[in-house]
Amino acid sequence: MSSAAFSSISLDPGCFGKGETTIRKRDGRRLCIRGSVASSPQSLQFANTKTQKSEEIVRIGVLGASGYTGSEIVRLLANHPNFGITLMTADRKAGQSIGSVFPHLVTQNLPDMVAVKDADFSNVDAVFCCLPHATTQDIIKCLPKQLKIVDLSADFRLRNVNEYEEWYGQPHRAPELQKEAIYGLTEVSREEIRNARLVANPGCYPTSVQLPLVPLIKANLIELRNIIIDAKSGVSGAGRGAKESILYTEIAEGIHSYGITKHRHVPEIEQGLSDASRSKVTVSFTPHLMPMSRGMQSTIYVEMAPGVQVDDLYQQLKIAYEDEEFVILLDKGAVPHTRNVRGSNYCFMNVFPDRIPGRAIIISVIDNLMKGASGQAVQNLNLMMGFPENSGLLYQALFP
Amino acid sequence: MSSAAFSSISLDPGCFGKGETTIRKRDGRRLCIRGSVASSPQSLQFANTKTQKSEEIVRIGVLGASGYTGSEIVRLLANHPNFGITLMTADRKAGQSIGSVFPHLVTQNLPDMVAVKDADFSNVDAVFCCLPHATTQDIIKCLPKQLKIVDLSADFRLRNVNEYEEWYGQPHRAPELQKEAIYGLTEVSREEIRNARLVANPGCYPTSVQLPLVPLIKANLIELRNIIIDAKSGVSGAGRGAKESILYTEIAEGIHSYGITKHRHVPEIEQGLSDASRSKVTVSFTPHLMPMSRGMQSTIYVEMAPGVQVDDLYQQLKIAYEDEEFVILLDKGAVPHTRNVRGSNYCFMNVFPDRIPGRAIIISVIDNLMKGASGQAVQNLNLMMGFPENSGLLYQALFP
Amino acid sequence: MSSAAFSSISLDPGCFGKGETTIRKRDGRRLCIRGSVASSPQSLQFANTKTQKSEEIVRIGVLGASGYTGSEIVRLLANHPNFGITLMTADRKAGQSIGSVFPHLVTQNLPDMVAVKDADFSNVDAVFCCLPHATTQDIIKCLPKQLKIVDLSADFRLRNVNEYEEWYGQPHRAPELQKEAIYGLTEVSREEIRNARLVANPGCYPTSVQLPLVPLIKANLIELRNIIIDAKSGVSGAGRGAKESILYTEIAEGIHSYGITKHRHVPEIEQGLSDASRSKVTVSFTPHLMPMSRGMQSTIYVEMAPGVQVDDLYQQLKIAYEDEEFVILLDKGAVPHTRNVRGSNYCFMNVFPDRIPGRAIIISVIDNLMKGASGQAVQNLNLMMGFPENSGLLYQALFP
Amino acid sequence: MSSAAFSSISLDPGCFGKGETTIRKRDGRRLCIRGSVASSPQSLQFANTKTQKSEEIVRIGVLGASGYTGSEIVRLLANHPNFGITLMTADRKAGQSIGSVFPHLVTQNLPDMVAVKDADFSNVDAVFCCLPHATTQDIIKCLPKQLKIVDLSADFRLRNVNEYEEWYGQPHRAPELQKEAIYGLTEVSREEIRNARLVANPGCYPTSVQLPLVPLIKANLIELRNIIIDAKSGVSGAGRGAKESILYTEIAEGIHSYGITKHRHVPEIEQGLSDASRSKVTVSFTPHLMPMSRGMQSTIYVEMAPGVQVDDLYQQLKIAYEDEEFVILLDKGAVPHTRNVRGSNYCFMNVFPDRIPGRAIIISVIDNLMKGASGQAVQNLNLMMGFPENSGLLYQALFP
Repeated sequence: MSSAAFSSISLDPGCFGKGETTIRKRDGRRLCIRGSVASSPQSLQFANTKTQKSEEIVRIGVLGASGYTGSEIVRLLANHPNFGITLMTADRKAGQSIGSVFPHLVTQNLPDMVAVKDADFSNVDAVFCCLPHATTQDIIKCLPKQLKIVDLSADFRLRNVNEYEEWYGQPHRAPELQKEAIYGLTEVSREEIRNARLVANPGCYPTSVQLPLVPLIKANLIELRNIIIDAKSGVSGAGRGAKESILYTEIAEGIHSYGITKHRHVPEIEQGLSDASRSKVTVSFTPHLMPMSRGMQSTIYVEMAPGVQVDDLYQQLKIAYEDEEFVILLDKGAVPHTRNVRGSNYCFMNVFPDRIPGRAIIISVIDNLMKGASGQAVQNLNLMMGFPENSGLLYQALFP
Repeated sequence: MSSAAFSSISLDPGCFGKGETTIRKRDGRRLCIRGSVASSPQSLQFANTKTQKSEEIVRIGVLGASGYTGSEIVRLLANHPNFGITLMTADRKAGQSIGSVFPHLVTQNLPDMVAVKDADFSNVDAVFCCLPHATTQDIIKCLPKQLKIVDLSADFRLRNVNEYEEWYGQPHRAPELQKEAIYGLTEVSREEIRNARLVANPGCYPTSVQLPLVPLIKANLIELRNIIIDAKSGVSGAGRGAKESILYTEIAEGIHSYGITKHRHVPEIEQGLSDASRSKVTVSFTPHLMPMSRGMQSTIYVEMAPGVQVDDLYQQLKIAYEDEEFVILLDKGAVPHTRNVRGSNYCFMNVFPDRIPGRAIIISVIDNLMKGASGQAVQNLNLMMGFPENSGLLYQALFP
Repeated sequence: MSSAAFSSISLDPGCFGKGETTIRKRDGRRLCIRGSVASSPQSLQFANTKTQKSEEIVRIGVLGASGYTGSEIVRLLANHPNFGITLMTADRKAGQSIGSVFPHLVTQNLPDMVAVKDADFSNVDAVFCCLPHATTQDIIKCLPKQLKIVDLSADFRLRNVNEYEEWYGQPHRAPELQKEAIYGLTEVSREEIRNARLVANPGCYPTSVQLPLVPLIKANLIELRNIIIDAKSGVSGAGRGAKESILYTEIAEGIHSYGITKHRHVPEIEQGLSDASRSKVTVSFTPHLMPMSRGMQSTIYVEMAPGVQVDDLYQQLKIAYEDEEFVILLDKGAVPHTRNVRGSNYCFMNVFPDRIPGRAIIISVIDNLMKGASGQAVQNLNLMMGFPENSGLLYQALFP
Repeated sequence: MSSAAFSSISLDPGCFGKGETTIRKRDGRRLCIRGSVASSPQSLQFANTKTQKSEEIVRIGVLGASGYTGSEIVRLLANHPNFGITLMTADRKAGQSIGSVFPHLVTQNLPDMVAVKDADFSNVDAVFCCLPHATTQDIIKCLPKQLKIVDLSADFRLRNVNEYEEWYGQPHRAPELQKEAIYGLTEVSREEIRNARLVANPGCYPTSVQLPLVPLIKANLIELRNIIIDAKSGVSGAGRGAKESILYTEIAEGIHSYGITKHRHVPEIEQGLSDASRSKVTVSFTPHLMPMSRGMQSTIYVEMAPGVQVDDLYQQLKIAYEDEEFVILLDKGAVPHTRNVRGSNYCFMNVFPDRIPGRAIIISVIDNLMKGASGQAVQNLNLMMGFPENSGLLYQALFP
């Protein structure tokens, strides 16, 4: 991170003046933030809801603010101590206020939406890019180079641009940027993310699958063949676009599989597992759409390596995640429920013996809009900016 | 079937008098039903809602009428041309009317509930037994022997009483009856059911799993090892008893696995698949509870036998079910949705290629209260009584 | 009704030949239906699902078959003893099968959808018109005059075409047809409907409001001023068109009012109540949209006329509806639930004392797609064709 | 507030040492909090999730922590800068951890539940009492007198103990405490709450009704007669106790009225409105239960005083609430949705003209567990302890 990259952070180690606060970075350096914002949690919190934040904090642009991942970024930043939104784009909602597009955010004092072509990036330090795939690569190409970017689209997730073309049906138009992009599965690639300018935020399904499987594969505890993933997602993953297939009447009180063998998150999952195993992994992946707005469960059926017991898997996951704030291995036997992470950035997981000897069942749950999208994006930008990784993310699940 | 078993059916082949109707049985014999009921669909239908049915039709007892499978039997029999309810038992609701226990059935003119110990079976020809397991075996033991019985509990599903004891935690108290009982997966055991006195109606999960797998296993098209079943159920399967875990607030907007490796439907599934394969089959079975009142999907992951293609599976299922009314193999590529069988007795199924070569994904959906319980029970009693198998079951799904 | 209007009904009083059935009409005349269909409920029922119906029954066209009211007509006619579908139109789905548009009806053997401009009415006796308002009047104008028509749109509900223009924003283009149309609130206008050629099927809200209020107003039991209607509707009333506002994510787990003071069902309600009172009635009407696919409750707050007691209201409703099959006044104190009429043609209602002396609370519930649309439409065509009013409508509610 | 009442707050105006932070109270005095907690929002936030809070903050007991209002208190306090939980009671869950009772709070490091009879209040400064009515009065009588108490039950809401007896069916057993209790509708009684020891936290329905009506009644803008309240609630208001009537299957996809004229929130509403009007007010109040876990809408139908316009109502509400953080009068014409306050402490409201001249429709929405229960409780304790009223309450709604 360069101190020149954005105006709000000073690396001056001597900054103990009035109205400044020291943030201890993991590497021991300290950051200082100027302004009254940091001096008192109370005034900060009033500020978050009723007044604009100090201009000295990191200035954030949200590109594509009229979708669900965009509004989730806004929700999270409402209480983020270091990020303040100075730009919001939404082409079809240009000129509208956040309150007219998302009435649940009506109390937020934010700039009106503008078309992305009219966006002024001169007072923006970092952006969350919540645009559709394909559009994204064209827009990110044109952004000022000093901006930090977390891209929530699929455009920079696949390292192999041929694979991108195969799954997305068109050539990649920003292969150079692709090379620069860091895949942002936070717990797996924390150090690279810390130093990244452009982070490709993982998809929701790939997050829920890789978090449990990567440590197990790295430790050679499970077979790479016949990994079977039966995933269940809430509807918000399909976005806010008007489609018959996601009307209330078409979704309530039922379930169905979709995208069988063809879901675009498959190559992303296989890329991550192949990286972990250093060999090509092909998975069986079947997503299901069900009547919940938020939430995702991956039920993963695996064969254990010879001689491995379920407890070995449990211990490996424990080692991998015991110091992590957002990845929680439940007590043995406890079953993760999606409801228990709703609205939070947590991934809950556990591992169970199968009836068939030598097999195990792994279950992980996330909120697809949080750890599966906007929550992990904030987590990543926190890292990129040198803030505590959990800043703005301290939400317990909303239950019931 | 013996003509003495119940008063309403005469085998007299010469019965063409006024007010009688001929029913063509599959075996070519004809049945006659006396009375005005059968003479006109219109008057019959008025009768169903506003008046009592003729006493000359088959007189039905519903034991355990205050639960969801019991009320579903009542719903179906409201429009059944040949069955009329003369007895309803519900120990905790004894003395109450159907309308006070199930207000959606308030227009039905039915006898009040009585405690099972006070039940008079003298005007009953057949019973649907919708009682909890364990209770059931004690009660069925005491029923008059001339009654035809369809038992919706688990008590007579497992041929091996030791296995019953292992999974249900107590010795079986009616092993002789167990020997007599016929497992009632209609499409698989139609001929035995036709001649049965006591039918053990299959569980919901086992129905959804066996219908697609039995024909494939019989044809040696899939491997018996590593059959992985990820099943999703609506909440009505848990019954109407008050439990914290199935409160609206605990179920809405989420999903979770339960009974991992330990669900009591496992031995029933394995029994059915083992019968089909003539060897011991062990399956991986993980049920999930999700926010829908009715519906069930089994997503089944299998390895195909060497040289077998997905199309072979499709053709085998087509052969198995093309003449069946209630089992529908969808067009290739069409995905079964639980919503599309809600309230109906259909099982929709299809088979898909997996991404992993040599594997296939089989999906079947049913309404757990219909083909998974009361619908199949009526289908079975129709057979046992010599009526057309679809009598009273001609409901299209209620969508949306 | 003229016997020439359609081919399937003969008024010949002497028809007792093989394969014919007598239907007793309310006026004492008998109708005969030829063909094997009516000869046996069993063969009829097989026919309904697996084979085409006899050509001798009433041949039905469904215009606008790709929406929810259209599919509901199809569902009901699947088991209707006297109606068979010979034409289905859906402009945007022309060329598609019912199973591809509505997979829950895939077992129905029906003609493919055609564009309305390509429709051949030569083998159609009656139509259900399930088209959007405004479109409807243009199409009905061009239909062959011998067709019986039940129109489910709003186009012919308002007798005063100026009022139509005021609420629908454009002049009425078929005022002559408007004069011919009979408003089809079955229980209120049964005799006119019986003789009608064109019936304007009531809106869902107006049905739920008028059924309880019309008898009370006619009996001068309630004041005409300050009738306050707080109505709650399921989402299917908004149709199957893709709109952001009715996405699952926008509807689940919440409620909101809409169309406050401006809902287009207001003039229809006021017309009905004004007719009943023979004076101009203005109501307060606030609809709410809530997370259920089907169902509608109107909670109606009224002032009773001087000296009137709640019991007087109850008795009046009892008198009005005790012989009705589809309007059920519950026992005193019993609260109507929308779940208890789901999928059925019933209206359940009751009346309660208010805390404020002199006031009463009236609650009525219907399934908006059934008694609020397609169910009442079938009820009306039954009347128009001389069949028992409940033909094809004998569904108990689907609960849970 | 006395500085002796709890250990964590010092009024020493000279406290600017390391690790202390100044909180500006509304009256200009400053409060100081010792300890590292307040020194940095970041370390505070880490502390909230992974470590115990400083012992120097206000020590909170949650009585009845196994219900939904209790768990909501825990959720809110997880991020409260000044409150830390040191005691949790739950008689039936005594000995259990929060994570076993509420898995969504498993990351919280909290004391295990104890039976209330075993509770040690020696390290408790204030309690939230989330117990059932009747139980509550007995327990609060026995609490140490120095404790600040916010009682979420109904036991101290009704000033008139005879009225309590009438509605709750038993004499009040703590009439002296009743006299001391302050009714905690924050925006209406802020100053009394600030100085209270025992606050009776309002019911959910009364909160949603009084917030819009009290200012209008005080300003004589609406008639006191014929106030008609049609309220719709989420299911969490019924608690977590296992009851058939709130099973998923009994609630999903439907709506019904309940407690017509007899709901126990009626006298509380009437007490509040009578206070505002200085005369006896009787209201019509009909609650409805619908399929949402959280949320509440009151649709209120009123007659305006002679000469009053809807805009007068709007302006009065604007004056009343423009400086309030949690009560939001929406822009004219904007309709409040319950979804837009879910999980937040906001009340959104608006006022609309009725079709009937002289009448208006007022709509208010809250989250019944937040502003309708635990959120307002925290707001009240913040006031009682001299903290910013919004401490720990800065949640934007969770949508979708």
